[in-house]
Amino acid sequence: MTAPPAKLVLTVPEPLEFDPIEEAGRQWRKHWGGEPVPAMKAVTSIMRVQQILLARLNEALAPFALTFARYEALMLLHFSSAGSLPLGKMGERLQVHPTSVTNLVDGLEKLGYAQRARHPSDRRTTLATITPRGREVAVAATEALHVISFGTPPLQEPALDTITDVLRRLRAAAGDLPERRSQA
Amino acid sequence: MTAPPAKLVLTVPEPLEFDPIEEAGRQWRKHWGGEPVPAMKAVTSIMRVQQILLARLNEALAPFALTFARYEALMLLHFSSAGSLPLGKMGERLQVHPTSVTNLVDGLEKLGYAQRARHPSDRRTTLATITPRGREVAVAATEALHVISFGTPPLQEPALDTITDVLRRLRAAAGDLPERRSQA
Repeated sequence: MTAPPAKLVLTVPEPLEFDPIEEAGRQWRKHWGGEPVPAMKAVTSIMRVQQILLARLNEALAPFALTFARYEALMLLHFSSAGSLPLGKMGERLQVHPTSVTNLVDGLEKLGYAQRARHPSDRRTTLATITPRGREVAVAATEALHVISFGTPPLQEPALDTITDVLRRLRAAAGDLPERRSQA
Repeated sequence: MTAPPAKLVLTVPEPLEFDPIEEAGRQWRKHWGGEPVPAMKAVTSIMRVQQILLARLNEALAPFALTFARYEALMLLHFSSAGSLPLGKMGERLQVHPTSVTNLVDGLEKLGYAQRARHPSDRRTTLATITPRGREVAVAATEALHVISFGTPPLQEPALDTITDVLRRLRAAAGDLPERRSQA
């Protein structure tokens, strides 16, 4: 995940002359009829909001030298039972490519937030372990994200729960959820 | 926007043992109480779904050597009244950094889908113009995205409209919409 330049999103000085997503909807309807419009608008909305959120999150995390991707990796270690996880397991849980896990752990290691070690009983496995400094930062960074409500204003409940619930159905179909649930 | 490796997301062979977002919600509630949970879950859901969608879209666009970001830039030119736009205007409409516009237009130019030219009446302004080949690809790529419903299955209306409507409120507050609307 590459962070877009935070300032661009956060300090847009003037609203646009029109909503680019509504405008795209009009063009689509004219050329291809109404059928693909709801999917096109939903996808474009998710892409745009992801950009806005990522800029807000990365700005709040910048004092800790974290991006949101690094923050997620740090929290995974923070909440793991032993404070450490095999890199492969981290990739599974973060659902990112092994190369990305390597880069994330490299970043955390350089910052002194995590350390690599060989698994004691399986030497082919590399473990990442959170450091005491990493635990301090995990808590402080989380508090910084709570201050900005994870970048979600002006949305509140129940709109936030609606997002989670609707998107859960897409995640389930993509294999993100346990078998039992995704079949429910 | 960097494309995550498509295969990883599309061919996850087995569901996870638990929903990582629900699990994070449980950890959060335990450590910080319930208040930040809806925002944390909504944000994490949007990040994850954006990843899934981007992988699906980029896979469908790969035969045209397009990423979704390039596709959006191409469609902007395709739907512009003269088939050409100043690069600055493209950045505004795509809401990306000038450097990103330069890269996107470079990509389209190398593919023969667009051409750069000086603005006839303002020599400081660079225009990007869609080529006839670019127009063919714009239509064919759109049809390819329609086949996969922009990656949104199993979601359908009215869930898709719910996403667009809820996220519009966040976009409005971030300055994405015309003044009149964002104040409504």
